[in-house]
Amino acid sequence: MMGKVYLIGAGPGAADLITVRGMRLLESADVVLHDALIEPAMLDYAPNAKKIAVGKRCGQRSTAQHFINKQIVDAAREHGVVVRLKGGDPMLFGRADEEMRALEAAGIEYDVVPGITAALASAATLRRSLTLRGVSRSVALATHSRAADSDAIREQAKADSLVFYMGRDSAPDIAHQLIDAGRPGSTPVAIVEACSTPRERTLTLTLAQMALGCAQEWLDPSQPSLLMIGEAFRERASAVKPRVHLKGMQAAA
Amino acid sequence: MMGKVYLIGAGPGAADLITVRGMRLLESADVVLHDALIEPAMLDYAPNAKKIAVGKRCGQRSTAQHFINKQIVDAAREHGVVVRLKGGDPMLFGRADEEMRALEAAGIEYDVVPGITAALASAATLRRSLTLRGVSRSVALATHSRAADSDAIREQAKADSLVFYMGRDSAPDIAHQLIDAGRPGSTPVAIVEACSTPRERTLTLTLAQMALGCAQEWLDPSQPSLLMIGEAFRERASAVKPRVHLKGMQAAA
Repeated sequence: MMGKVYLIGAGPGAADLITVRGMRLLESADVVLHDALIEPAMLDYAPNAKKIAVGKRCGQRSTAQHFINKQIVDAAREHGVVVRLKGGDPMLFGRADEEMRALEAAGIEYDVVPGITAALASAATLRRSLTLRGVSRSVALATHSRAADSDAIREQAKADSLVFYMGRDSAPDIAHQLIDAGRPGSTPVAIVEACSTPRERTLTLTLAQMALGCAQEWLDPSQPSLLMIGEAFRERASAVKPRVHLKGMQAAA
Repeated sequence: MMGKVYLIGAGPGAADLITVRGMRLLESADVVLHDALIEPAMLDYAPNAKKIAVGKRCGQRSTAQHFINKQIVDAAREHGVVVRLKGGDPMLFGRADEEMRALEAAGIEYDVVPGITAALASAATLRRSLTLRGVSRSVALATHSRAADSDAIREQAKADSLVFYMGRDSAPDIAHQLIDAGRPGSTPVAIVEACSTPRERTLTLTLAQMALGCAQEWLDPSQPSLLMIGEAFRERASAVKPRVHLKGMQAAA
């Protein structure tokens, strides 16, 4: 017996932000191998499936990738419908490539079901379009896990809207490097934490404030966060909803 | 009476690639104002709603944006649950900003529900991750409707993976400009047309071939298409599935 594997994007967090296709595959799954950060409510779509938590938690490699690959291949040799449920979208900062290669090497059939990536879900939360006619015509999605990654930052600095995944700890470095690359200190920054979950929070500040470390105290290291930088994230007067004041910045919880 | 408007991303095309939240809102909608390109099967989620086709068809402005805005506002003054269903994701090349401003000006409540954008759905179709450890750490999403847009192209040229929306007619120009900006002519290009629909087709070629216009004859002007450029789109030997040969290129239909 040889099962089929579905690499499914769970989306940003909320159980109803998975695709209909993803939900239906979960309903028919025999096994679900899921990232540690998946919201528990999403697993309720698969009440009868065996659930195995495999993913890495916030940069911490709780399970090595090669072991995850082996678990997926082993599951497909024992079960019919195997779901590999990954946070966000599998094809963006998701290491799906390594899992697909392992499945191909083992001769196991698979399909990929896309998921809502955090940049789009966060834009919906903020009610800010990532692209704006005449203001922002391109978006760069990047990651920055090492502070030494300054060349990559400089290369991205010219895209109109910049979105950094996994940039929490290097937020001040990213801001410094963007300012060095010519971005004004007054450029708006929006940070969305735990997007679409009950723990969702947003903070708006400027690039100069982020360079000074103003966001670091506000950020919760146990939650995923997204840095969104560019004129597209400037608040509209008609839509401002400040709820919390924090060191001169506006935060909405 | 004042209704609530939901700006919902329909995703790339397939009816089951909308989010669960989007589907449920369609089920409860009184009116659905939808882009012309929405697949008819998606509207079956809203059998009892009044449906109004509004959007623009492939760059052709069949309905002016200000008139669309007015239709949405008028609908919210007559109905309880108004869905504005937009192809892809509303916040990426979707002109949601103009619709949100019109709703704010009219004092109408609204929410945004994200959708699967074509870049992610196409990566799933191709089974190519947009980011790859050590090869591609960033993705630029851009549009290119004017051939004169060469500055924007040069600015994007350094992102590892490049995805152009609405670039079909300028594909040779885009390729020329990327080669001028330093991208090798051997850089892989994947084109996905009508992603996730029954009309989906893919073509793989090189940047040099695209500069020579090799893709233009293959492309169908009646369908949306996405240009994906970068090393991340190089085919893996283990996954190559050539089905059609076309002037020395590999196309899978």
